[in-house]
Amino acid sequence: MNILITNDDGWGAKGLLCLIRNMQQLGHVTVIAPDKAQSGQSNAISVGIPLYMTKLPTPQEIAGADIYLTDGTPSDCIKLAVNTIFKDHLPDLVVSGINHGSNAAVNVIYSGTMGACFVAAEQGIPAIGFSLCDHDLDADFSYLEPYIIPLTKQLLSRQHTYGICYNINAPMGEIKGVKWTRQCKGNWENEFFPQTDSQGNTIYVLTGNFHNHEPEAEDTDEWALSHGYISLTPQSIDMTCYAALR
Amino acid sequence: MNILITNDDGWGAKGLLCLIRNMQQLGHVTVIAPDKAQSGQSNAISVGIPLYMTKLPTPQEIAGADIYLTDGTPSDCIKLAVNTIFKDHLPDLVVSGINHGSNAAVNVIYSGTMGACFVAAEQGIPAIGFSLCDHDLDADFSYLEPYIIPLTKQLLSRQHTYGICYNINAPMGEIKGVKWTRQCKGNWENEFFPQTDSQGNTIYVLTGNFHNHEPEAEDTDEWALSHGYISLTPQSIDMTCYAALR
Repeated sequence: MNILITNDDGWGAKGLLCLIRNMQQLGHVTVIAPDKAQSGQSNAISVGIPLYMTKLPTPQEIAGADIYLTDGTPSDCIKLAVNTIFKDHLPDLVVSGINHGSNAAVNVIYSGTMGACFVAAEQGIPAIGFSLCDHDLDADFSYLEPYIIPLTKQLLSRQHTYGICYNINAPMGEIKGVKWTRQCKGNWENEFFPQTDSQGNTIYVLTGNFHNHEPEAEDTDEWALSHGYISLTPQSIDMTCYAALR
Repeated sequence: MNILITNDDGWGAKGLLCLIRNMQQLGHVTVIAPDKAQSGQSNAISVGIPLYMTKLPTPQEIAGADIYLTDGTPSDCIKLAVNTIFKDHLPDLVVSGINHGSNAAVNVIYSGTMGACFVAAEQGIPAIGFSLCDHDLDADFSYLEPYIIPLTKQLLSRQHTYGICYNINAPMGEIKGVKWTRQCKGNWENEFFPQTDSQGNTIYVLTGNFHNHEPEAEDTDEWALSHGYISLTPQSIDMTCYAALR
């Protein structure tokens, strides 16, 4: 099996190395990673900007993997790989992450990790995004790690549907199990406050807190995560609201 | 009515000025626009990057409008406006565009124009994105223009549902009418070819062609556009694939 891996925290992130190590149990791994952090890059693509792609020497701990670095976004990474390294034969699976931070609820629309999966879904390639609800650079992936290969095998055994991918989020610490979930309704608030830069100019730096609109609903990703479960949400690149069409 | 307008082609784009002029018929207009082209920026947000916001003098042709410029993405623009200019009272409507280029089919996941609408939808604000299938800087918006206010009034008269917004795309030239549509299935292909920069390094610049998977389906946005109709697609920020959950 040929597995293509990317992330949005950039090459060298602890979560990416953990994912590569695990995926090497399933087949040959090719990595194409951004050369810098690309959090919040969503499905951004580099329009009119020339991109570079460099093959890196492979570190010993992931010997056998092919590693490429680009100055593009996570979406660029998948598009570049599909049109160059894999131009004669698409990869069998795209995996993205492990993201340092949650991509549950509305975060999915801002997520570079999931953006890469959506590009794969557009190309008809099965794709899974993995995220841990811990932004720390040295986040502890050890509780999630035993779930990675069983979940991947389970999802690959399902019939593949065009335009669909999977969004897996794990809570910090002990894990009680896995729940199939839907995206929780909620919004970010208090995201920008005026601050002052060193020149006395007003600047705005993104922050904020998530306001959960349905904390009691037990079928959401947020509920699963706050109760110690891994959330597994199938996501579609078809954003049509069919209820509004009827 | 308080109307907030942004776009992804940046301040000064012909499509933005056309949209402002028209929306001034419906109420007071506040514009917060990127200071440069932000095509393909999707829902990208500026994580860890300080943003600046400047109030500009209002050009005579759109007298009465308040104009702000930022160095952020279209998503940043809406988040900034909601947390500063509109922090005590949300706008009644967000309008984005008119984009120079199509945002139909899978383009919606890459679109900065629609990214701004998705942020509005997350905040519970009614939102409409307008796009014309013409990338030209001097694109002719005159055929679309008579539809802008009637369509906006029609959509505002519907019951507002949290998380939903509208994606309006217009063909070039004469328009036969408006069709409610769903997002067409299809993918971009041949997107990157190796080229050489002035130093002899290999570079990759995004290009490509859209491959329509269902050209015969008469209920899609692509069908409407290729047959001379405006496509009107309701879009949801809930990307859960409910069919895969069942």
